[in-house]
Amino acid sequence: MQFSPLIKELIDAFKILPGVGPKSAQRMAFHLLERNRQGALQLSHVLHNAMEHVKHCEQCRTFCENKLCEICANPKRQENQTLCIVESPQDMLAVEQTSEFKGRYFVLMGHLSPIDGIGPAEIGLEQLSQILENDDITEVILATNPTVEGEATAHYIAQMCKTQTIKASRIAHGVPVGGELEFIDGNTLTHAFNGRRDI
Amino acid sequence: MQFSPLIKELIDAFKILPGVGPKSAQRMAFHLLERNRQGALQLSHVLHNAMEHVKHCEQCRTFCENKLCEICANPKRQENQTLCIVESPQDMLAVEQTSEFKGRYFVLMGHLSPIDGIGPAEIGLEQLSQILENDDITEVILATNPTVEGEATAHYIAQMCKTQTIKASRIAHGVPVGGELEFIDGNTLTHAFNGRRDI
Ligand SMILES: [Zn+2]
Ligand SMILES: [Zn+2]
Repeated sequence: MQFSPLIKELIDAFKILPGVGPKSAQRMAFHLLERNRQGALQLSHVLHNAMEHVKHCEQCRTFCENKLCEICANPKRQENQTLCIVESPQDMLAVEQTSEFKGRYFVLMGHLSPIDGIGPAEIGLEQLSQILENDDITEVILATNPTVEGEATAHYIAQMCKTQTIKASRIAHGVPVGGELEFIDGNTLTHAFNGRRDI
Repeated sequence: MQFSPLIKELIDAFKILPGVGPKSAQRMAFHLLERNRQGALQLSHVLHNAMEHVKHCEQCRTFCENKLCEICANPKRQENQTLCIVESPQDMLAVEQTSEFKGRYFVLMGHLSPIDGIGPAEIGLEQLSQILENDDITEVILATNPTVEGEATAHYIAQMCKTQTIKASRIAHGVPVGGELEFIDGNTLTHAFNGRRDI
């Protein structure tokens, strides 16, 4: 005996979700069938809608369902001559939540990773090049992740800025505020020492 | 700034899944948008289909999309005069996977839990009563879980069988095969001692 065909299909379909194995997928399927069919129908509807209508902002490449995202559609933000480069929409939200940065964004939707076939074209660097050439940008802040790929990507874009004589800066890496030195990894500590400033 | 309305809706919709909090829901939404829109559309479709078409087997109450489930539709299984009572379709599958039991099932889809308003009617005991009265059942095997509610439910059904003079038996509880005594909880060990047999 096995579960009925529709239930098997449902369990299999859940397995495409990150972090969901056979057991969780089964739990999800039965939970919805038993207790929340209304919620499940809503999830089905929203899922379909999002996949059909969410595309990329034509200017910054973040996900949104309109031509321009909220920030690119805001004239005040667009007057600002600073452009912040991040890897993902989640990173963009994290920067926004500090309320520190008032400029524009460019979202790579990834990072350079030649081994996975992800080159400059895949992360929108042609589009970025056009922006640097045509728009009135005076500083590019490189806020890619402090990983090998993120650093390589930042370096590549810094070179692009150089050829256009636009200032490029990298966000600081070091000990997180509130972090305790003894629990910080050596790599971060090295960054913290190299990035030291006079007080 | 926040994510665009459709993305927010999608993240919220994922939170109905068991074990999925805000962070996982966000990861699921972006994973599908970035990497698997086809799979997401398929999930949406299957989810809708399952919620609309999966109902209960008219005889044993397990989930299925037809009038009768695979087992209830099998004449050989229906000739057998033994009826196994389980709490869920997953428990039914677990018993089936041992290939030991050749009889019929009745799936309670829960257990008695007066505190949650779950009484005999909610777990189909009226329907079970009809089966015990009309069908040719000679033994009822109570395979509810060894929890307080599962035991109470087993006890209640055993009484129903008694009034119909049908034999009722409870599956054995004890040390799992391959289990090590030192890691078994005291309750299970008590069951194992009380259920000891001569060898
Ligand atoms: Zn934008
Ligand atoms: Zn059935």
